[in-house]
Amino acid sequence: MSSFNNGTDSLTFDAKPYAFTFPLKHTALLVIDMQRDFLLEKGFGEIQGGNLEAVQASIAPTKKLLEACRGAGMTVVHTREGHKPDMSDCPSSKLVRQAAAPNNTQHKLVIGEKGELGRLLVRGEYGHDIIDELQPLPGEVVIDKPGKGSFWNTEILHKLKARAITHLIVSGVTTECCFATSIREANDRGLECCGIEEATSGYNDACFKKSTLDMIHWSQGLFGFIGTLQPLLDILAPLAVSSRNAESTPPQTPPIFDGDLTIPSLQQAYRNGLSLVTVAEALYDKIEAYQKTDPAVWIHLESRDNVISAAKALAAKYSDRKALPPLFGIPFSVKDSIDVAGLQTTTACPPLAHVASTSAVVYDRVVSEGALFIGKTNLDQLATGLTGCRSPWGIPHSVYHKDYISGGSSSGNAVSVGAGLVSFSLATDTAGSGRVPPGFNGVVGYKPTRGTISFRGVTPACLSLDCIALTTCTVSDARTLWQILEDFDSSDPYSKPTLAFERHVNSIGAQAKSFKFGIPPPEALAICSLPARRMFNETVAKLQKMGGLLTSFDWSPFQKAGQLLYDGTFVSERLASLPDDFLEKNRSALHPVILELMDAVVARQSTAVQAYRDLQAKALYTRQAAQVFAYAASGIDVLVVPTAPTHWTIKEVLADPIKKNSILGEFTHCGNVLDLCGAAVPAGTYPVSELSGKEDEGVLPFSVTFLSGSRLDAEMLEIARRFEEAFKAEAC
Amino acid sequence: MSSFNNGTDSLTFDAKPYAFTFPLKHTALLVIDMQRDFLLEKGFGEIQGGNLEAVQASIAPTKKLLEACRGAGMTVVHTREGHKPDMSDCPSSKLVRQAAAPNNTQHKLVIGEKGELGRLLVRGEYGHDIIDELQPLPGEVVIDKPGKGSFWNTEILHKLKARAITHLIVSGVTTECCFATSIREANDRGLECCGIEEATSGYNDACFKKSTLDMIHWSQGLFGFIGTLQPLLDILAPLAVSSRNAESTPPQTPPIFDGDLTIPSLQQAYRNGLSLVTVAEALYDKIEAYQKTDPAVWIHLESRDNVISAAKALAAKYSDRKALPPLFGIPFSVKDSIDVAGLQTTTACPPLAHVASTSAVVYDRVVSEGALFIGKTNLDQLATGLTGCRSPWGIPHSVYHKDYISGGSSSGNAVSVGAGLVSFSLATDTAGSGRVPPGFNGVVGYKPTRGTISFRGVTPACLSLDCIALTTCTVSDARTLWQILEDFDSSDPYSKPTLAFERHVNSIGAQAKSFKFGIPPPEALAICSLPARRMFNETVAKLQKMGGLLTSFDWSPFQKAGQLLYDGTFVSERLASLPDDFLEKNRSALHPVILELMDAVVARQSTAVQAYRDLQAKALYTRQAAQVFAYAASGIDVLVVPTAPTHWTIKEVLADPIKKNSILGEFTHCGNVLDLCGAAVPAGTYPVSELSGKEDEGVLPFSVTFLSGSRLDAEMLEIARRFEEAFKAEAC
Repeated sequence: MSSFNNGTDSLTFDAKPYAFTFPLKHTALLVIDMQRDFLLEKGFGEIQGGNLEAVQASIAPTKKLLEACRGAGMTVVHTREGHKPDMSDCPSSKLVRQAAAPNNTQHKLVIGEKGELGRLLVRGEYGHDIIDELQPLPGEVVIDKPGKGSFWNTEILHKLKARAITHLIVSGVTTECCFATSIREANDRGLECCGIEEATSGYNDACFKKSTLDMIHWSQGLFGFIGTLQPLLDILAPLAVSSRNAESTPPQTPPIFDGDLTIPSLQQAYRNGLSLVTVAEALYDKIEAYQKTDPAVWIHLESRDNVISAAKALAAKYSDRKALPPLFGIPFSVKDSIDVAGLQTTTACPPLAHVASTSAVVYDRVVSEGALFIGKTNLDQLATGLTGCRSPWGIPHSVYHKDYISGGSSSGNAVSVGAGLVSFSLATDTAGSGRVPPGFNGVVGYKPTRGTISFRGVTPACLSLDCIALTTCTVSDARTLWQILEDFDSSDPYSKPTLAFERHVNSIGAQAKSFKFGIPPPEALAICSLPARRMFNETVAKLQKMGGLLTSFDWSPFQKAGQLLYDGTFVSERLASLPDDFLEKNRSALHPVILELMDAVVARQSTAVQAYRDLQAKALYTRQAAQVFAYAASGIDVLVVPTAPTHWTIKEVLADPIKKNSILGEFTHCGNVLDLCGAAVPAGTYPVSELSGKEDEGVLPFSVTFLSGSRLDAEMLEIARRFEEAFKAEAC
Repeated sequence: MSSFNNGTDSLTFDAKPYAFTFPLKHTALLVIDMQRDFLLEKGFGEIQGGNLEAVQASIAPTKKLLEACRGAGMTVVHTREGHKPDMSDCPSSKLVRQAAAPNNTQHKLVIGEKGELGRLLVRGEYGHDIIDELQPLPGEVVIDKPGKGSFWNTEILHKLKARAITHLIVSGVTTECCFATSIREANDRGLECCGIEEATSGYNDACFKKSTLDMIHWSQGLFGFIGTLQPLLDILAPLAVSSRNAESTPPQTPPIFDGDLTIPSLQQAYRNGLSLVTVAEALYDKIEAYQKTDPAVWIHLESRDNVISAAKALAAKYSDRKALPPLFGIPFSVKDSIDVAGLQTTTACPPLAHVASTSAVVYDRVVSEGALFIGKTNLDQLATGLTGCRSPWGIPHSVYHKDYISGGSSSGNAVSVGAGLVSFSLATDTAGSGRVPPGFNGVVGYKPTRGTISFRGVTPACLSLDCIALTTCTVSDARTLWQILEDFDSSDPYSKPTLAFERHVNSIGAQAKSFKFGIPPPEALAICSLPARRMFNETVAKLQKMGGLLTSFDWSPFQKAGQLLYDGTFVSERLASLPDDFLEKNRSALHPVILELMDAVVARQSTAVQAYRDLQAKALYTRQAAQVFAYAASGIDVLVVPTAPTHWTIKEVLADPIKKNSILGEFTHCGNVLDLCGAAVPAGTYPVSELSGKEDEGVLPFSVTFLSGSRLDAEMLEIARRFEEAFKAEAC
């Protein structure tokens, strides 16, 4: 359905020193500093004595370029040079060097001083923003940069990598300054760049433009490529046809909702005119039907009327179908340990239930991007458990089979996505809660590096190990959500500041196709069921077929970290966020398995000395694991494990709830202890009979989890996405 | 004595767009990529079709420039472009773009392939190294860079800031590529650059050199300045006179050791011909004399013969006085919790004593840079205490007064520097052990951000809060040592990876002169003795006089973190590194105060739940404190506190050992809990009688500690150094 946007293939157009080839899905348009301060009268540039006519020459070509790239569905990144109002990010040399020149008559006002368009080059001022013709659309990336280069003290590299961008089409002002500097920086970081001659200009093009562009492509491409506009427009134009047709000749009958809930498909359908209310009505029919199949999915379900009203309000707010926010009309659920203002947060534990006065940061963020809230889902009490069988609100079952568990703690969460009731769900993960349930329901469960998404407004399970997890239909959707949600939150003590110190990109050649992966040793895999072992072996073969290089590594830190979580004192932190008398006061209100577990934690009488020893061990294993993913010949890119070693029936779990639970975490426990990122990805199905030995027509889903080091989310997700893509291609 | 190197003043020479002014002590020469691979036949450059004659034009001028800058005592930084042997840091686009050009005949071999000078642009190969004429001297910084720019994925900015560099003289190859890119990067980071026209060249100077240089200084200095060689040589030449005279006409009689143990003075004396043996003999006379004053300083003292032999070996190894390593012949001691191979490490605790088989990383590092080991110093048992009164090896006293404590736990350490027996001492700091004793002995105690110096090979006190501390005569010496010692150590789980995401430099203007500082509120300062309060008030006035802006901030996280260390479970970690039965087995061998303390820790029966609550609180306060130092208008640059609130007599401490100890940590406890960096700096003396109320001719030292946020060491040290400088200037 997204025919105009399936550019897995590469495009090629004439350039210097030779034709530039770029993979559409991995290419962004970079529009540099097309700000009023540089381009309009009374702006910073004119005040510095710049020749406005020269610099304005690039506006019209850049507009054509921007529209063509948008039409082709490309990622668009805008930059703006400027400073915080307090000027704390402006070096003194930048402030005064030019104005300090003896007999200066040229630089009449400096950065931060007040001009007619506001304080010069200061964020939030009118002059600092992008000119009207080129204003960013919702969802396009805007990078505020303090330097002339786009990469100093900005998140641009991280954001490009998070979007799996390896190639840049570059435009903007000024040619000899920010444009050229940014291309040099991008080139060092492995990004393959092609500047577009007409779409860049400077204040002194007569002197500098030709030599600047020549230096870039000199010596058969010292820094990159330089092309002209028309050949690029010519190859992008055909890609925009379907989209433009849809706009110019709206269909007589509104498009029908085909049930595809993945984010890009739904977005495209909305752009083509699909009504949000149509989707909401269809979903509610489905949700009500599924209540009969499984009444344990929801703890709170919004009323149909509420959701229809919300849908109408959204449609009214965003009437321009060409400028929809990235989650416009995307239905979602949240785990009921995440606050939504005005609703109860239960954490499946009645004594903790309270009406939230404000919403969690993650909830607010997706709603502000247009997402449509459907309800709050069931979970294992206190987010403690991997089975889905520990809630007073009932036991959801796998969407594949009513006898088999959904997994936990994010049970209803994964079912709501797996059953096609929502596009995505916001979950949490401490010991595997955001990976095991997606694995048991045929969907994707992504646990980003801890601290990259704010945890504020969520009931903690084990605060220093908790993180937000995302349950989605596809890896791409998980990545899209992560791009929207990740942000440093200074009010969350466990939030990690953003880093610029990152690996480079590999844009072309064999490196981009191959990757090194490790798997647990045979003795660790022995815990798996027969079908899980078979499926895992097949997965390994598939990974090799798609270019993966099976590589040996030191498994011991992963194994020891898992044991540490299970046998050590970390479980005591689950009590740390509760009042001292919580257990005593609420014995009858707690789920019997949770009560038994918590009593056992208390009975251990773990001491502070033991806790500090565990933390020292955690630090050691974390360092050892980080070395496994270190960027060197001896490391691996991803560790691939079965998401869970087997799939229990609900009956099996109820008969032996604690031991069966612990087995499920064999390959997830180490994740947060070692500060890894991970994504559980569907890897086919197998006959129930292969697992049970009994006759059964059904199948169960198999899932593998890709794990990588702290903050290597972008790299890990791209490998997971390629696996998903290769898997689906093979299945077709 | 270092007359040629006291360039606090600025120098000026003709340049474009106007004269370039640079502060000698804050200016580095940057020599870019003068590698065989770029400059010699059969190197990478020639293989890529580069014009060797053009590029070689810069060699002779660069050599003149390098010698002039060395003669003036300037910091010198060399860069080398190249890649790890496994090529993991080489983006694919860099590898193949040029060679992939259709009909390529120019680029015959790519990076990593074998040429006659070795694998092209690969680290460790002959061709990758710098040409013979320009080889770096010991102590000069060499930056290996994977990109054309010097700042991508290197530590150059950090290393420049650690040396308080704000200005760069730039030279090297090639002009249009690495030279120009590095200047653009440096400019964005606030470094004020002047390129030297003759000392840079490229393969295509006819096309690109003029426009490249013009772009840099265009518009009255868009990116920086461009000068020519001779005017710069003319102003640098006079600075080298004293040094050159010393070399050309060696004095008839060897220079006499004047007792000045600061690193630059001693280095200069050695360069002028002072004999290492002379220094060693003089020191041993002094050490033996001081033994009579205070026999409790050393736990192990090297024999005079051993040290004389080591001195002779060093002198033989480094016979070229122009190329001495940065710690050549600098005498030092180490706290006896730090391993030295072949010697006992006692940690002042006989049951723990053991002969170390390998030395601590810090010891090895200073020795490899030429430092001269004198002995191991006394400390409070298990590095636990702030008084210096808790060791079986006796009680060292303050070098100012025999009745007053030396402070602890690094007691002998601070005395050995304060008494002028060594130039520096390697210590540790957990709750203030590296700050309080320097404060009580009139020397500098610097506690870097935890994890920036390897802790491997040191007996832990409280591992997750421990760090190496440096005791020195001056702040500059502390900074010099830190530059040598700081390094990521993947085998130390608490070592912090190096970051490139850093604040920019402020090179000129008012910003560099003023800073914002905070002080504790009056109710917190009420704990101070009368003279401490008076001295602290005077210090605040001095800070304001030198440009400091007293700024209000939120004191509560600092106060709460201090309480957490004292009242919480963190002290339990002191038992975590010892066997469970350690206390029971060794009761009679432990110092009675330590035994009482440890028994109290055991008696508390702190639980794991309490430990995790404390850790959550620590995370919260750490974030709050980080916000205080956040780089914004509302933050402060440094927090200034009295190093200790008072100075006890030994008698007072012995009468009430635990309470008196805890009072001493009032302003140090929060340091490591909050991941701060800090330096205790002398701030004058006061009459003993003012403290005791009794007649006494003596004086006691007062000390203030500068604290700042994690990894803000460079910024904090520069403010501390300026305070020290202003203080000394006033005292003269």
